[in-house]
Amino acid sequence: MEHQEFNEVKQVKEHESKLLSQDKVENLIQQAQEAKVSAYCPYSKFRVGAALLTTSDCVFTGCNVENACYNLGICAERVAISKAVSEGHNKFKAVAVASDMSDQFISPCGACRQFMREFGSDWLVYLSKPDGTYLEMTVNQLLPVSFGPDDLSMNKVAN
Amino acid sequence: MEHQEFNEVKQVKEHESKLLSQDKVENLIQQAQEAKVSAYCPYSKFRVGAALLTTSDCVFTGCNVENACYNLGICAERVAISKAVSEGHNKFKAVAVASDMSDQFISPCGACRQFMREFGSDWLVYLSKPDGTYLEMTVNQLLPVSFGPDDLSMNKVAN
Amino acid sequence: MEHQEFNEVKQVKEHESKLLSQDKVENLIQQAQEAKVSAYCPYSKFRVGAALLTTSDCVFTGCNVENACYNLGICAERVAISKAVSEGHNKFKAVAVASDMSDQFISPCGACRQFMREFGSDWLVYLSKPDGTYLEMTVNQLLPVSFGPDDLSMNKVAN
Amino acid sequence: MEHQEFNEVKQVKEHESKLLSQDKVENLIQQAQEAKVSAYCPYSKFRVGAALLTTSDCVFTGCNVENACYNLGICAERVAISKAVSEGHNKFKAVAVASDMSDQFISPCGACRQFMREFGSDWLVYLSKPDGTYLEMTVNQLLPVSFGPDDLSMNKVAN
Ligand SMILES: [Zn+2]
Ligand SMILES: [Zn+2]
Ligand SMILES: [Zn+2]
Ligand SMILES: [Zn+2]
Repeated sequence: MEHQEFNEVKQVKEHESKLLSQDKVENLIQQAQEAKVSAYCPYSKFRVGAALLTTSDCVFTGCNVENACYNLGICAERVAISKAVSEGHNKFKAVAVASDMSDQFISPCGACRQFMREFGSDWLVYLSKPDGTYLEMTVNQLLPVSFGPDDLSMNKVAN
Repeated sequence: MEHQEFNEVKQVKEHESKLLSQDKVENLIQQAQEAKVSAYCPYSKFRVGAALLTTSDCVFTGCNVENACYNLGICAERVAISKAVSEGHNKFKAVAVASDMSDQFISPCGACRQFMREFGSDWLVYLSKPDGTYLEMTVNQLLPVSFGPDDLSMNKVAN
Repeated sequence: MEHQEFNEVKQVKEHESKLLSQDKVENLIQQAQEAKVSAYCPYSKFRVGAALLTTSDCVFTGCNVENACYNLGICAERVAISKAVSEGHNKFKAVAVASDMSDQFISPCGACRQFMREFGSDWLVYLSKPDGTYLEMTVNQLLPVSFGPDDLSMNKVAN
Repeated sequence: MEHQEFNEVKQVKEHESKLLSQDKVENLIQQAQEAKVSAYCPYSKFRVGAALLTTSDCVFTGCNVENACYNLGICAERVAISKAVSEGHNKFKAVAVASDMSDQFISPCGACRQFMREFGSDWLVYLSKPDGTYLEMTVNQLLPVSFGPDDLSMNKVAN
């Protein structure tokens, strides 16, 4: 994590109006940490938890679920989001991510960023440490210049 | 679906002792059909629902959740299973799958079969039609000669 | 691998007419073993190689390519197939799979079976050991009652 | 694409020393466009091509390869990279991406960004249009604050 990136985050803090209160953020991170306990990760032994806040103020949690065929596992963030969708929720305010890394903010993989982006670009992602400190970013900051649903219907050249 | 496969299913019926009662199966399929309603599938417009029965008799439902980058979607079966795992359940009796295809039993894709197999080979999968009729198969029948968790720790030749 | 499955394989041998000669099979397995050397698998340390024979008798090889986000890796079989497709080939006769497991025939995961099935159900898959012995199966045997391209256009009930 | 992002790109141009010559970039984009022709995309009908330049100046091309189970497809960029790896190359200078969208630069999905990042953060990605115009970005710009191979071995808190 370089200096420049911390600045970017700061800028967002100043200009963004949809921020959660400190209390709500801490609470969401706490729920992500608790979700981590259910992680099924016998292969990586790298537990991750996620807690997703909908615009209707429901929280859905997820953990990573791995597979002997490594590439068939699913990350915590995608579990939380698909769980919410399967319960009829697909508008989101924020998602918090938690891991066991003591010195690093756990950051969503690219696939999870794309999975988030399907449901909007300007909602918040909290990258946390076990001590509760965090970075706040938007989906758009994590996946700039993104490919998204609109691209599929754009004008095309003739083949 | 050829004759031979129907026979295989019959054989299982005769020898298998873990079968669900007709009522329970019908109920599980009903829940899979209801789960289908939440499907987020603007790309395929092919709705799928799943209902997963744990050994502790809880039911977790799932639906397909697609993505503009088609390969980042998740099937209904995997949503249901990861949802259960994230709630602390990873022993399963059966899963029912439902779609809108009127004349075909909806069958799990290979990735979902592998995802199921991570949690055992001898539990039941119900492939259903909207009219409630179904095929009953085991995970092992759907994924014979499977790669699984044990393979990762098998003896290896020296490189 | 139970007795019954060996029988199934034998049955195929008797009835199937598209079989490769023993020489061709051994050669394909040899190429799968060589492909294994390029495997990028720092996480699983489980090397897999694949060699794919097209109907025009070209061979495309693949190895597993893993990722720090485990679920973003790709298996050897899918690498070989997508490589062939990207070079204009999508009709296949057979694929051989090789690993370092000394006592087990390496078997394709469910996702690879589904990826194979996209390009037909009745072509051959060779599950091999480092000593060159193998099991011969069809895609259909590995993925019975499969979901496939036709399902997407089947009749649907009204929502 | 907002103004700010164009600025970022410009900044990179000024500070980055690994840039390709205009000729090489145009050539790489041309190869990505040609690779697009092999795309197997009966479901999205959205053709994508990629051309990957290794540090040893080899080029590997890829196209998207889709599947009836939409989530089992593979993007053009991942096909090109895994193809290179399977041929013994895993150090890359740049990748160009091409699609049929006439008015939009085609941008890699999040999964492809993560797949690229496995092999370094500071190599170049060219997002192009059919008319040959392009945006130049680094992997790091496309996937800021990324999760990567180092994270897996970081210090962890005790469970
Ligand atoms: Zn992820
Ligand atoms: Zn599936
Ligand atoms: Zn596989
Ligand atoms: Zn992609």
